[in-house]
Amino acid sequence: MAEKITPRNVDYSRWYTDVILQAKLADYSPVKGAMVIRPNGYAIWEMIQQNLDRMFKETGHVNAYFPLLIPESFMKKEAEHVEGFSPECAVVTIGGGQELEEPLYIRPTSETIIWSMYKKWIMSYRDLPILINQWANVLRWELRTRLFLRTSEFLWQEGHTAHATYEEAEQETMLILNLYKKFVEEYLAIPVIAGRKSDAEKFAGALHTYSIEAMMQDKKALQAGTSHNLGQNFAKAFDVKFQDQQGQLQYVWATSWGVSTRLIGALIMTHGDDNGVVIPPRVAQRQIVIVPIWRGEEEKKQVLDYADAVKKELTKEFTVILDDREQYKPGYKFAEWELQGIPLRLEIGPRDVAKNGLVMVRRDLLKKEFIARDGVLQTVRATLDLMQKEMLERARKFQEDNTHQVDDYNQFKKTIEEEGGFINSHWCGSAECEAKIKEDTKATIRNIPFDRKAEKGKCIICGKESEGRVIFAKAY
Amino acid sequence: MAEKITPRNVDYSRWYTDVILQAKLADYSPVKGAMVIRPNGYAIWEMIQQNLDRMFKETGHVNAYFPLLIPESFMKKEAEHVEGFSPECAVVTIGGGQELEEPLYIRPTSETIIWSMYKKWIMSYRDLPILINQWANVLRWELRTRLFLRTSEFLWQEGHTAHATYEEAEQETMLILNLYKKFVEEYLAIPVIAGRKSDAEKFAGALHTYSIEAMMQDKKALQAGTSHNLGQNFAKAFDVKFQDQQGQLQYVWATSWGVSTRLIGALIMTHGDDNGVVIPPRVAQRQIVIVPIWRGEEEKKQVLDYADAVKKELTKEFTVILDDREQYKPGYKFAEWELQGIPLRLEIGPRDVAKNGLVMVRRDLLKKEFIARDGVLQTVRATLDLMQKEMLERARKFQEDNTHQVDDYNQFKKTIEEEGGFINSHWCGSAECEAKIKEDTKATIRNIPFDRKAEKGKCIICGKESEGRVIFAKAY
Repeated sequence: MAEKITPRNVDYSRWYTDVILQAKLADYSPVKGAMVIRPNGYAIWEMIQQNLDRMFKETGHVNAYFPLLIPESFMKKEAEHVEGFSPECAVVTIGGGQELEEPLYIRPTSETIIWSMYKKWIMSYRDLPILINQWANVLRWELRTRLFLRTSEFLWQEGHTAHATYEEAEQETMLILNLYKKFVEEYLAIPVIAGRKSDAEKFAGALHTYSIEAMMQDKKALQAGTSHNLGQNFAKAFDVKFQDQQGQLQYVWATSWGVSTRLIGALIMTHGDDNGVVIPPRVAQRQIVIVPIWRGEEEKKQVLDYADAVKKELTKEFTVILDDREQYKPGYKFAEWELQGIPLRLEIGPRDVAKNGLVMVRRDLLKKEFIARDGVLQTVRATLDLMQKEMLERARKFQEDNTHQVDDYNQFKKTIEEEGGFINSHWCGSAECEAKIKEDTKATIRNIPFDRKAEKGKCIICGKESEGRVIFAKAY
Repeated sequence: MAEKITPRNVDYSRWYTDVILQAKLADYSPVKGAMVIRPNGYAIWEMIQQNLDRMFKETGHVNAYFPLLIPESFMKKEAEHVEGFSPECAVVTIGGGQELEEPLYIRPTSETIIWSMYKKWIMSYRDLPILINQWANVLRWELRTRLFLRTSEFLWQEGHTAHATYEEAEQETMLILNLYKKFVEEYLAIPVIAGRKSDAEKFAGALHTYSIEAMMQDKKALQAGTSHNLGQNFAKAFDVKFQDQQGQLQYVWATSWGVSTRLIGALIMTHGDDNGVVIPPRVAQRQIVIVPIWRGEEEKKQVLDYADAVKKELTKEFTVILDDREQYKPGYKFAEWELQGIPLRLEIGPRDVAKNGLVMVRRDLLKKEFIARDGVLQTVRATLDLMQKEMLERARKFQEDNTHQVDDYNQFKKTIEEEGGFINSHWCGSAECEAKIKEDTKATIRNIPFDRKAEKGKCIICGKESEGRVIFAKAY
């Protein structure tokens, strides 16, 4: 059995690492900054991929694949972009035993290589829009590994679209941000706040960046997805023009957007408890584990026959594990599946068989409940639906309970220091005030929420006029 | 519309490239040796992934993800392996702006990084078997690009399993080879010959390698998948031992196996014709295109209403394109969808509506057939099933017609030179005779077929005794 997990209230950061290692979601690799995603963790990523990919396709997107290696000269074509990404790149200088004439960068993101191809593919308005997504690995140099949250290499999807007008690009940027919000809330059961990033926090090369921001159980913020309106910056850098319907040549408008394996970290930190990870039913590859309990051969046959029939019925809709291993006791099995976060446990002993029922335990509540054998499929289906819903509600309540409205800077510093969480405060919009807060408190502007109230106020730093509140928080 | 495709009998190699570029399956990238897989090509890869992944999971395998970058020292731990792969690696020497202490290789294959992790995960027989697969990009340096067939970076899956005994590893190696054969024949409609590679052609670091070999329309062979019994080589290189049931420490037994985006090249070269690519129905993401034909508004409404209803009915089971673009004529549309290889075309004009029917054209036959509107779903389903079956049969007949049994070396050289195809000849088993044939004719031993007849004979080179025939061919 696994070692003990450090309780969250003792050391949240150690709890996080303990849970991941012991639930076999991921492991450290011998290469600094790199992680291995183990089958239990990768199964969550597959569920994220399947569902997001379906949502992308339903909104007209298609997948493609572009090269891993980007010539140095491409990286340098968009000034902000190279400044933002170059320092964190891994660079190939030797290929096939030869020193390369031009170094090749492992993609930290693919705007440059993709726009070099769009130059070949786009001639006229008839070639637009291009709605391409890519599932890929990217690399941004890191020495300090934080599993799922900060690693050199990570897996993600990156959408790169090309449009005839600013408005269309803006519409796409928002479509995707809303799609991300829907996915993260409805599948991962993580409530998020959608809004615009400040200029200081936007993507290197973007006109503006939108994000969804979640709150972890330690009350720190985690950026769960971003969608960028890139304007014409990359079209200009790569000279990508199209002939519009009037025959005029115009630069193409671009967006890009992505979510990554970081979402697995967000899932763990939103829902996990001191017993392990808790996987929301809709992204659990295996939703149910049945643990049969018996003594002696006679009970064994009776209980296993009964458990087999239950499994068979549930398998019509769900993926079910029947844990009939003989070398482990029920208590050991309970702990193991709790650690791994299987949403629902069913316990079946001789007395349950006699009463024509079984014991059901939701992973998030860990309370035993006796249910009838008849209609078990309906009961389980309803329970998993309810669990999914309540996990989101619980996380939303936590986020709301830990969001503070603050109008005084001393109070602001005190709250950040002692309470943490999200702080809604007025901000004048200047980079200076934003930088001062970051320097004083390490809190950053997470975003300017779309649904904030129009409310006149005074900047919490400089006292100048503000049009509304923004979210400050310390972030992962 | 696309440019003209070079006919196959004029220049097969140019035909291949023309088809890929014009059907927008892939494109050259600005980086030497690298390709871009465009949405039409990637859709085929997604179908390959979905079906293979399901087959892997049905046989107990799970997915995981290991790092892209491998320390140089790991590559050097298995002597044959480093000799085979090192010269074709891309090497990262700079990370985060700093010269690295140890160079990192972009994975050409992942045995070394994976076995360094298995060392952490395997202690006892209880930890075995490990049945892990990875979907990933790999890189083997290439300057001459041949789209899908030979590129530096390519996409593949690589299985890496760990077992307690040689027998179990051997069983796994064969299980996967048979799974590959089944997939390639039943989904890609490409007949293959399964067998063992000669020692000269086996994987660098393997005990032995099994392969499936296909024949392209130019009669050259293409290796479509390989499965390796690695013995204890990697366990020894990485010191991976387990405690067996008797408490003894033993080295672990390994297998690895893979197929790649090369399969898309095989599909194109097996089934394509002078009009473009032909996608077997089971791996077509879009199986049917409906082309409505009308003149004037009245006909338009009538035809489109009818076509909409047909589409709606077929959408219950298939993905259907209704090509109602006004700016293109029917003939243009026919050519475009033929180029892209959509398996079935349905043409609907006013006369078809009047007769309560429609015209159906199979992509592989290009013959028009009038079918009834009633039962269209059943007709289409049966037609696609038949098409899938006949594509395999046609390719198998081609392979059989171009397989020669040769017992004289002069005849052998003449056949290779003038006819091409597979040549079944006796071989004594020596590396010298194998090397001489390769030097004289460029033909290699594709494999030693599992189902070859036990037949005494004389080696076609040295005249020594042989136990049976092997397949010689020029290969991609």
